[in-house]
Amino acid sequence: MLTIARIAEALGARAEGDLSLSVRGAAEPGSASPDELAIAIAPDWAGDLARGRARAALLWPEADWQALGLDAAIFVPRGRLAMARLTALLDEPALPPGIHPSAVIDPGAELAEDVAIGAFTVVGAGAVIGPGTRIGPHVTIAPGVRIGAGGQIHAGVRIGRRVTIGRSVIIHPNAVIGADGFSFVTAAPSHVELARSRMAEGEIPALEDPTWHRIHSLGGVEIGDDVEIGAGSTVDAGTIRPTRIGDGTKIDNLVMVAHNVVVGRHCLLCGQSGVAGSSVLGDRVVLGGKAGVGDNLVVGDDVVITGASAIHSNVPRGRVMMGNPATRIDLHVESYKALRRLPRLLREWSAGVPKGRGAD
Amino acid sequence: MLTIARIAEALGARAEGDLSLSVRGAAEPGSASPDELAIAIAPDWAGDLARGRARAALLWPEADWQALGLDAAIFVPRGRLAMARLTALLDEPALPPGIHPSAVIDPGAELAEDVAIGAFTVVGAGAVIGPGTRIGPHVTIAPGVRIGAGGQIHAGVRIGRRVTIGRSVIIHPNAVIGADGFSFVTAAPSHVELARSRMAEGEIPALEDPTWHRIHSLGGVEIGDDVEIGAGSTVDAGTIRPTRIGDGTKIDNLVMVAHNVVVGRHCLLCGQSGVAGSSVLGDRVVLGGKAGVGDNLVVGDDVVITGASAIHSNVPRGRVMMGNPATRIDLHVESYKALRRLPRLLREWSAGVPKGRGAD
Amino acid sequence: MLTIARIAEALGARAEGDLSLSVRGAAEPGSASPDELAIAIAPDWAGDLARGRARAALLWPEADWQALGLDAAIFVPRGRLAMARLTALLDEPALPPGIHPSAVIDPGAELAEDVAIGAFTVVGAGAVIGPGTRIGPHVTIAPGVRIGAGGQIHAGVRIGRRVTIGRSVIIHPNAVIGADGFSFVTAAPSHVELARSRMAEGEIPALEDPTWHRIHSLGGVEIGDDVEIGAGSTVDAGTIRPTRIGDGTKIDNLVMVAHNVVVGRHCLLCGQSGVAGSSVLGDRVVLGGKAGVGDNLVVGDDVVITGASAIHSNVPRGRVMMGNPATRIDLHVESYKALRRLPRLLREWSAGVPKGRGAD
Repeated sequence: MLTIARIAEALGARAEGDLSLSVRGAAEPGSASPDELAIAIAPDWAGDLARGRARAALLWPEADWQALGLDAAIFVPRGRLAMARLTALLDEPALPPGIHPSAVIDPGAELAEDVAIGAFTVVGAGAVIGPGTRIGPHVTIAPGVRIGAGGQIHAGVRIGRRVTIGRSVIIHPNAVIGADGFSFVTAAPSHVELARSRMAEGEIPALEDPTWHRIHSLGGVEIGDDVEIGAGSTVDAGTIRPTRIGDGTKIDNLVMVAHNVVVGRHCLLCGQSGVAGSSVLGDRVVLGGKAGVGDNLVVGDDVVITGASAIHSNVPRGRVMMGNPATRIDLHVESYKALRRLPRLLREWSAGVPKGRGAD
Repeated sequence: MLTIARIAEALGARAEGDLSLSVRGAAEPGSASPDELAIAIAPDWAGDLARGRARAALLWPEADWQALGLDAAIFVPRGRLAMARLTALLDEPALPPGIHPSAVIDPGAELAEDVAIGAFTVVGAGAVIGPGTRIGPHVTIAPGVRIGAGGQIHAGVRIGRRVTIGRSVIIHPNAVIGADGFSFVTAAPSHVELARSRMAEGEIPALEDPTWHRIHSLGGVEIGDDVEIGAGSTVDAGTIRPTRIGDGTKIDNLVMVAHNVVVGRHCLLCGQSGVAGSSVLGDRVVLGGKAGVGDNLVVGDDVVITGASAIHSNVPRGRVMMGNPATRIDLHVESYKALRRLPRLLREWSAGVPKGRGAD
Repeated sequence: MLTIARIAEALGARAEGDLSLSVRGAAEPGSASPDELAIAIAPDWAGDLARGRARAALLWPEADWQALGLDAAIFVPRGRLAMARLTALLDEPALPPGIHPSAVIDPGAELAEDVAIGAFTVVGAGAVIGPGTRIGPHVTIAPGVRIGAGGQIHAGVRIGRRVTIGRSVIIHPNAVIGADGFSFVTAAPSHVELARSRMAEGEIPALEDPTWHRIHSLGGVEIGDDVEIGAGSTVDAGTIRPTRIGDGTKIDNLVMVAHNVVVGRHCLLCGQSGVAGSSVLGDRVVLGGKAGVGDNLVVGDDVVITGASAIHSNVPRGRVMMGNPATRIDLHVESYKALRRLPRLLREWSAGVPKGRGAD
């Protein structure tokens, strides 16, 4: 149980009413019980608040808490930022401390103070794990892997050879870091190469020797500080230099980052997005859900790629891109609107002179 | 070995010929051996049946089994429904009974009668598992998780904190339920917010403080009865209330259901589809393979979204939607056909007055 | 450390300069240290080479190695093919030999000579594993699975019942082979069936009994020789015959191959691509990243589907396909260019007679 005073202090926010009132958690306004803090950070939520039973709420700055029937309120100008602080306050560590006796830890691994290791986790020879890092059950850490301080590596994560991970990195269940890149070559030019060079023809011949020869991945992965990687996502090893994820970048679930890719700092890669081999993303790039970036491309700083869009060529800095192939969002929207008008126009056309277009 | 009489009874279907004939399994008509039941539920399969060696077959209602050279036949009006019953009859449990001695089960977990637990599985304190539920090897079940009766949790599944699962739920290998949601906020308006508000301009400036602050996920996941979740799929925890999957909903492989999403009852989410944060799907919604639903949207009951389509705005009930951005399928097809005609029309245009469009 | 002479011999390539010079690895030209072989297989890299400290390099055939300031050089006409050989030479096995004492191997499993099994791996009764195959930690192998010689099965892979795997197959972490297919049927025609038959109307009614009945998967999976399957990918079991992956086919990360699918030989399925149920891909087919193939389709030999494209109908052999729905790439590019011109044309149109189109 936390008092309203304690929460307001943690949030650096103004509070009014009975600051000694205690809550055990947070809830949506309509379903909050009297011992939960209702989250009503915009006027839209006022109605739900009236229907719920909350005595205290997190409110938008101008809210009239007394008129809303509350005993106490905390006022926040940027609600979601307050939610970040509030939920951190209310949460507890997902991974327990201690080293489970069933874990198989190579005697040559170096575990700093307060490292936690879950049941059935395997830590290879020469792995180095920083202070306070907690590793869940069923995790595989290859020989030689380095993980910084304060990390959380959840159940079922696989970390391959030649991977270095910075401080305060969170990796969610079943993510795979440092698997081999998908890099193959045929003896003679392959279908992929032919398709690119003979695009205009739209057809390609059979190949005499279609055997794919494997290029091994020797470069590993380098992950910066404060990175988060979602459940089931994969970051492949580079060929002769590391695949890189910059500081502060957050990666959602089922995202694929291919070999040799460089992702900048403070990027956001949403669910099921992907970056193909050797492409480079600048800093603060946002990939919407299911967005894709083709191989060997450069995407500038501050680019936002909207959900389900596909990047087939380089993108200058600061652009908002949409579509498949993606273009500047304003051009895309314009083309799309024109396309939606097109069927009617073609009907008018085939019916004769369109309205307002006489042969004057 | 099962007799034709026994199978026909289980299927509630009419059978003719030698009903005492026994088969050991089912096969396609062309490759069936004499002790396999050939599956020829539509006239298309008649030719293959003649080439195979089956003595008995599952046939469409009007089939002339004797002319097809069979000794026995079972007639089914809706072949795939019969296949559901037949394959259930021929299958055996994928997960064995019993509790493997290597499993790490917290003494505070409550296991009902006949619960099976595979090798190296971890069950946390306070977890409650219903009667007859079978859990495979290498599974991680967090403290406090509740799983109903008659479930099957396959190898490598990760079930996080605050997850409740109903009766008769099947979760396939390496799926992740209840990982943290992907929810971040910057101190000042972020690129994502700017891109939405300044869409017309198509460009966004750099951000002074690009740090992403993490909103913790306290809400968990609630999964109804008779739900199935495919291999490698992820269902993230909600922020302050559960992410919800309704009764009877089936989810394929590599699907992502983000935090706070509500999926209705009897939905079908096909492979690699995804639903972004806080969106709501009604009952009986179908997402085709690779289909995506953006965040904070509402999709009505009985909506069908075709494969590889992307939903960027709310969808009223009963619509069939196609494209990216998706529209009603008939409008999409019309626009698409117009687009395919466009290059020729533009060529005609630039060549002079189009056919049938004289300056009369 | 390897001498230049030794490397040139392994590559079957011409070398010049001090062939006794030794290197410990390969690096990009700009970051290579004096004991690394710089990889500069095209003239583009010449500038970087000058900035780096390499004494030896892998070069394009016409390169003037002495002018580039090197002591030794190896010349390769097809650089990436040389990279395949070079990286294989420089790599070492990812999985160690030996059987870890913690593994749970059923006494009824047959392990050939030199099979390696990692910590906490489970091998079921009747499984047969060929000579030299190495299996990582945390792997689940169901009863009766057959794996050929010389394979590598990485950490966290799940191999289900009725799966047969050929020789020299590599499966990357957390891939799932042989999970149940996604196959459901309603008692009366379902939304999916209605949407297909009533496409023109774009709306579908509610369904009286929306229960999805499960069709069990009895057919397993058959994987040929020299196949590679990426991290987190899934290949589902067939219904009454195996899902098949042909010899020499390479599958990237987070790819989904659904039940009953047949993938030919020497195909390349790039990251996050997917093939829906019962579709057939010919030999040497390439699916670009995020490309999708709908269900029950036939894609001919030598077809290339570009990244983020979606196939909604059969494709004849040799085609290069692009778009959603995908068409021949040349037609797609033509339509797309016309679409980009359309907004301006519509503006001209509404402004009056377009340029060069007087009523003459």
